[in-house]
Amino acid sequence: MPSETPEDNADQAYPLTPRNQVRRIAQRGAYDDATVHAIIDRAWFGHVAIRDGDGVVSIPMLHGRDGRSLLFHGARASRLLQQIAGGAEVCVSFAEVNGLVLAKSLFHHSMNYRSAVAFGRGHEIADASEKLEALRIITERLVPGRWDDARTPTEKELNATLVVRTPIESASAKIREGGPKDEAEDLALPFWTGVLPLTERREPPQPADDSGAEPPGYIATWLAGS
Amino acid sequence: MPSETPEDNADQAYPLTPRNQVRRIAQRGAYDDATVHAIIDRAWFGHVAIRDGDGVVSIPMLHGRDGRSLLFHGARASRLLQQIAGGAEVCVSFAEVNGLVLAKSLFHHSMNYRSAVAFGRGHEIADASEKLEALRIITERLVPGRWDDARTPTEKELNATLVVRTPIESASAKIREGGPKDEAEDLALPFWTGVLPLTERREPPQPADDSGAEPPGYIATWLAGS
Repeated sequence: MPSETPEDNADQAYPLTPRNQVRRIAQRGAYDDATVHAIIDRAWFGHVAIRDGDGVVSIPMLHGRDGRSLLFHGARASRLLQQIAGGAEVCVSFAEVNGLVLAKSLFHHSMNYRSAVAFGRGHEIADASEKLEALRIITERLVPGRWDDARTPTEKELNATLVVRTPIESASAKIREGGPKDEAEDLALPFWTGVLPLTERREPPQPADDSGAEPPGYIATWLAGS
Repeated sequence: MPSETPEDNADQAYPLTPRNQVRRIAQRGAYDDATVHAIIDRAWFGHVAIRDGDGVVSIPMLHGRDGRSLLFHGARASRLLQQIAGGAEVCVSFAEVNGLVLAKSLFHHSMNYRSAVAFGRGHEIADASEKLEALRIITERLVPGRWDDARTPTEKELNATLVVRTPIESASAKIREGGPKDEAEDLALPFWTGVLPLTERREPPQPADDSGAEPPGYIATWLAGS
């Protein structure tokens, strides 16, 4: 049973395949574990796409990551989770927008972002201790320290929960950063250019009416993070 | 040619179908245009899922909205855009996370979010004036006022750009808000409970080195928005 997500090996990368290759503006693509995993870990949700009969469906879902696997959980009655557990191919995309890029020409307007796409096939985690460990990883990614400071799941709650591991078969990251890239002949035009930055802010915790406890130290740590 | 996105009719809603029906915690689902469109309009990216040979692919893309249509644009060479333009079924998901919800029990931990899922089939916008209008709608959603304050596209730039309209055939929204919903028998447990709120912040504009212009008034307006 994995106890901690191991550090990424700096030399390790996902294989380049026809599925995950970044073709549009290929220099923005990256395939190394460290870059891909950092984007996955910062995203609150992954958007999970799956074939659904004749069509396709994409649903935002909370995820966790254990090494080169994505972890998902939810109600056992969830059709999407059942399909993932059944081994259907999934593609999960993650994106964080960091700014809007205003150029001299409308054509060169852009956005700064960090995105990742991962392909894989999942299976249910049925073993009770592995299942608890997966739920711990999912929880601890969101609020480190919380797992040991809440009521643990009952057997009934665990039985009602489906937990799925999806080993990542291939993945890629795509990143755009920096200012506008204008044509030389446009630079003298009188329009303002630059970046409108966007950041996510963690706001002070809002206690529930019946919380009845002071915020623990790990919440102050969470608040100071980003 | 549509000039402005019309206001949503308060009574109008997307049809409930097996494709878009929210089944898990159905009371969180909504189908009215106003709720669905507000979520679409606030998201910087949609995650566009499409069938791709034997599998499925999901890619984050900038979008615009014109009434009950989604608009996408990009390089004409983009395979994904070509598939959308070719009439493939797409499913586009949007999500904004507003907070992490910490409950007495790990089982009732949750997230506050606003998400939407839209299904449809697209086609290219070939007509030059409709194409420009679609690009205007996409631009103005991001930074209102910018379209008239930048160099307009050349014919060559327009020809290199593929613009696709995807009428929304069905859609749904799913929203979770508020504090934790704990079991009555857990309320006396000594764990802190509440919400850790997340907000997006618009930071002061960063001018490009060669901007050579003061930030126009619409950028101050953008900065004050959310």
